[in-house]
Amino acid sequence: MSANKKARTQPPYELLYWPGIPGRGEFVRMKMISTLTDQTSTGSDGNPPTFAPPALRIPGEGKNGAALLISQTPSILSYLGDKLGLDGADEAEKSWILTHTLTALDLNNEAHDTHHPVAIGAYYEDQKDESLKKAAEFREKRIPKFLGYFERVLKGNQEQGQGKFLVGGRLSYADTTLWHVLSGLEFAFPKEMEARKKDYPLLFGTFYNTVKEANGIKEYLGSDRRKQFSLGIFRHYPELDRQQTDEHTKAGAPSQ
Amino acid sequence: MSANKKARTQPPYELLYWPGIPGRGEFVRMKMISTLTDQTSTGSDGNPPTFAPPALRIPGEGKNGAALLISQTPSILSYLGDKLGLDGADEAEKSWILTHTLTALDLNNEAHDTHHPVAIGAYYEDQKDESLKKAAEFREKRIPKFLGYFERVLKGNQEQGQGKFLVGGRLSYADTTLWHVLSGLEFAFPKEMEARKKDYPLLFGTFYNTVKEANGIKEYLGSDRRKQFSLGIFRHYPELDRQQTDEHTKAGAPSQ
Repeated sequence: MSANKKARTQPPYELLYWPGIPGRGEFVRMKMISTLTDQTSTGSDGNPPTFAPPALRIPGEGKNGAALLISQTPSILSYLGDKLGLDGADEAEKSWILTHTLTALDLNNEAHDTHHPVAIGAYYEDQKDESLKKAAEFREKRIPKFLGYFERVLKGNQEQGQGKFLVGGRLSYADTTLWHVLSGLEFAFPKEMEARKKDYPLLFGTFYNTVKEANGIKEYLGSDRRKQFSLGIFRHYPELDRQQTDEHTKAGAPSQ
Repeated sequence: MSANKKARTQPPYELLYWPGIPGRGEFVRMKMISTLTDQTSTGSDGNPPTFAPPALRIPGEGKNGAALLISQTPSILSYLGDKLGLDGADEAEKSWILTHTLTALDLNNEAHDTHHPVAIGAYYEDQKDESLKKAAEFREKRIPKFLGYFERVLKGNQEQGQGKFLVGGRLSYADTTLWHVLSGLEFAFPKEMEARKKDYPLLFGTFYNTVKEANGIKEYLGSDRRKQFSLGIFRHYPELDRQQTDEHTKAGAPSQ
């Protein structure tokens, strides 16, 4: 715990992920990822092996002073949330923040599955028919179910959070996680999201704009450290998006 | 925190879930689930609304002495793990236990998707063609990838865990979670699992048998509190299982 204070002022966290745009140190980074996902590794320095990136490496915080290695997005977020003051004010809030993060990541995973419904290891083009079906259900049933849920979370916390925060009165890693998923959905399904946004005034009127203007977040989003969406979890295949902007609105609000 | 000690001796935890086999109190339970998943609720007693069961209710531990309500399986497990001494001995172990739990639950979710690859809200029978493809990838690529990973975790922790525990030298909620997923896979894909088990001696030779014989677990599994698998996440559709027990073994070990 003695390293916490130091970590806050000079974070030694190192995020290991699949390479994005190559740059300085790319060769070193590729070597590290290759080691990280080695299918014969039983781990090192007291850390377990990693199933898949991302992983977080924190020098000096592992067993016997070695680096600590943590993988799985919610586990990384929970660890960092505690260290960076982005978790809750008490035990109840900490639990809800992890819970909302997991729900936002479920939405993230379902968005991924729209272009890979049958085989994670195969190309989109080889599962396009199934993708069209999966995306239709996702757009018509799942998106409104998730967005409606988060709108209700914001409403239930309106007294403290003023529509800006999912839990309590300050920014948490649940807020930043949900924000990123929403921005990914806007990239992947622009017509669907444009048609639906007005049904969720707190989510898109208050929350979305507040988070992207928050201290640090705004600077990050405006920098080249923010990677553009392309062919990752969120992909824009026009055929998987809503085909007419008024597809549903004529018949009234869709059922949940 | 003052309630922790009391909780250890007389746990007031109440798990809210979709009804299984009806019994005493079923009407009350159905009413509670109906309220829990009300699509207009903004939460109650300071708790956020629930996206979906399961949820855990802990009297007196919420805001202003109200009941605390937590949903999302990993969040519930993390909360209970801390209270019941089923998490780790230090911060590193706590992170790894959450991480392995999330990986085991990813395997759980992928097992579910074999019978619902296209539409969560539709019947299996209406997505059977896609299920056959999804199940083939799951059996041939994903099952060996996950089982191989957990075998390596056990091997990396063998000095302390002796093949019995994923992290450290005692039972954690990662162990119980992985155990349940493995038992579900044995129910859903009996031929596939029978053919593969021998490749993972720690996982099926030591770990699986140790967890099911652990204090409390053994009694639970032998009681009628342990629900039988049927048409939940794990389903036994013979057409989705391996079709011949020697499908792959003749050609040697499958690639990972």
